[in-house]
Amino acid sequence: MLSTTTASNTTAPTQFLQVKGHSYAYRRFGNGAGLPLLCLQHFTGTLDNWDPAVTDPLAAGREVILFDNAGVGRSTGDVPETIAAMSEHPMAFLDELGVQTCDVIGYSLGGMVALHMVQNRPSIFRRMILVGTAPRGGEDIMHLEKPSLAKRIQDPANRGYDVLKKIFFTASPASQAAGEAFIRRISQRKDDLDPPSGPKVANAQTAAFREWETFNGQRFAELRAIRHPTLVVNGVHDEMIPVSNSYRLSENLANAVLLTYPDAGHGSLFQYPESFTRHVAAFLFSDSESAAF
Amino acid sequence: MLSTTTASNTTAPTQFLQVKGHSYAYRRFGNGAGLPLLCLQHFTGTLDNWDPAVTDPLAAGREVILFDNAGVGRSTGDVPETIAAMSEHPMAFLDELGVQTCDVIGYSLGGMVALHMVQNRPSIFRRMILVGTAPRGGEDIMHLEKPSLAKRIQDPANRGYDVLKKIFFTASPASQAAGEAFIRRISQRKDDLDPPSGPKVANAQTAAFREWETFNGQRFAELRAIRHPTLVVNGVHDEMIPVSNSYRLSENLANAVLLTYPDAGHGSLFQYPESFTRHVAAFLFSDSESAAF
Repeated sequence: MLSTTTASNTTAPTQFLQVKGHSYAYRRFGNGAGLPLLCLQHFTGTLDNWDPAVTDPLAAGREVILFDNAGVGRSTGDVPETIAAMSEHPMAFLDELGVQTCDVIGYSLGGMVALHMVQNRPSIFRRMILVGTAPRGGEDIMHLEKPSLAKRIQDPANRGYDVLKKIFFTASPASQAAGEAFIRRISQRKDDLDPPSGPKVANAQTAAFREWETFNGQRFAELRAIRHPTLVVNGVHDEMIPVSNSYRLSENLANAVLLTYPDAGHGSLFQYPESFTRHVAAFLFSDSESAAF
Repeated sequence: MLSTTTASNTTAPTQFLQVKGHSYAYRRFGNGAGLPLLCLQHFTGTLDNWDPAVTDPLAAGREVILFDNAGVGRSTGDVPETIAAMSEHPMAFLDELGVQTCDVIGYSLGGMVALHMVQNRPSIFRRMILVGTAPRGGEDIMHLEKPSLAKRIQDPANRGYDVLKKIFFTASPASQAAGEAFIRRISQRKDDLDPPSGPKVANAQTAAFREWETFNGQRFAELRAIRHPTLVVNGVHDEMIPVSNSYRLSENLANAVLLTYPDAGHGSLFQYPESFTRHVAAFLFSDSESAAF
């Protein structure tokens, strides 16, 4: 239940919360009048993959809560193989933390978890930001085996974070420069780090993507029941979760604004952190029933 | 060359500029540090169809210039039957006005004219806002004969501006209420009005839409050469020029941010004028090379 005074993901201490036999790793920093902002992370990402240029400006107006799902980083347990099972962990975590309603940034895999959470318990979120993600039944979700991605992931020249520069950003000089700046920023934290995710995490999360691509009944019908003001964000050249998935989200969610960025891939929020945080802050500041901000 | 002191489209006097045998009707109002903002209007729209809730807040930071193309409102001449020919008139008008570079809002038909202008003379615009419009080779552009639109346009209960409430807005109570507010706002101006457009205008502009749907060579290739920072805006339920056209614009223009609005049709800018003008003002305020704002 501690709130830190260090409002940066570069320095905020990792905390641990025990819930029903699980220990969840998280960081909680920042303050202000806004509701807490839960941040749900991408495929294989840990607390250390949250760009301080995204988290820190937002922490100036509210508490930001970064969360390692079960089996990721220093959270215990097995990584669930479905989005449904993954969504139980942040729910139990928020309940134990005493957070009844918060805002959420769900990025990529984290956006799918956020969608499942809000369907099961609408009161858990007030406003949602869904970045580079896909609805159930979406298309071409995280097929890392396809040649365009596989050659970059398997290139031995791309080690550690360097692979993110190749798969989260486009090939343009401007986007690659933004990717280098992003890697510099997430490399600033030197202590109290999460262990990087291994194949066990990747395999279980990939199974969850495959299950999320399936659907029964009318495609996207479940989205129309979600009335929460939602901001959908993507890069137009996202090869990991194509922007068409963001189109389907904003067309089928009852109340969603879509924002897409040029010359950007899966990491659009890290490529344009000033723009992204300015829009997110304005969106979160609004208490209109409409997503328009 | 007069600039008025009345910064509202409800009260700004209509002016006339003589160029090469044409007389162009226009209104010019507002002031501030920004470049002038040229506003290019939709199918059959005149100066009186510009919502003061859109023009007036923008006129607080720059001059807004509303323009009747040839044969529309009180501008003389025949309505051209191609976008290319239409684009010559605002070009000649700006030249005579002494405006070498300006910003532009191109709405629907006006967006097509803006795209053609910037291709032919890139220096004419600094930044573009393209609302509810389509690239050359776009799909399902202004097919008013399709049943979903025809039944609303031909309904005798929809007279005058009432038809706009039915075709620019969705059927939801919130969107229809926004439509009523829009009609109240554009009805505030009582004097110095343009004549409404008749079938002659509609037929020529429809011919231009049909020509604009055709393309040669690689579809959308010409967009990739346009590097101007561009903000593309649409309602996700636009039935007149479907949002897919905005997707193609933001995917193929080199430097475009896309913003879509929920529960909105072709008139998204009039449904959410506060949000629209806030985003447009922020976008125009930026002098970044990137469209991200």
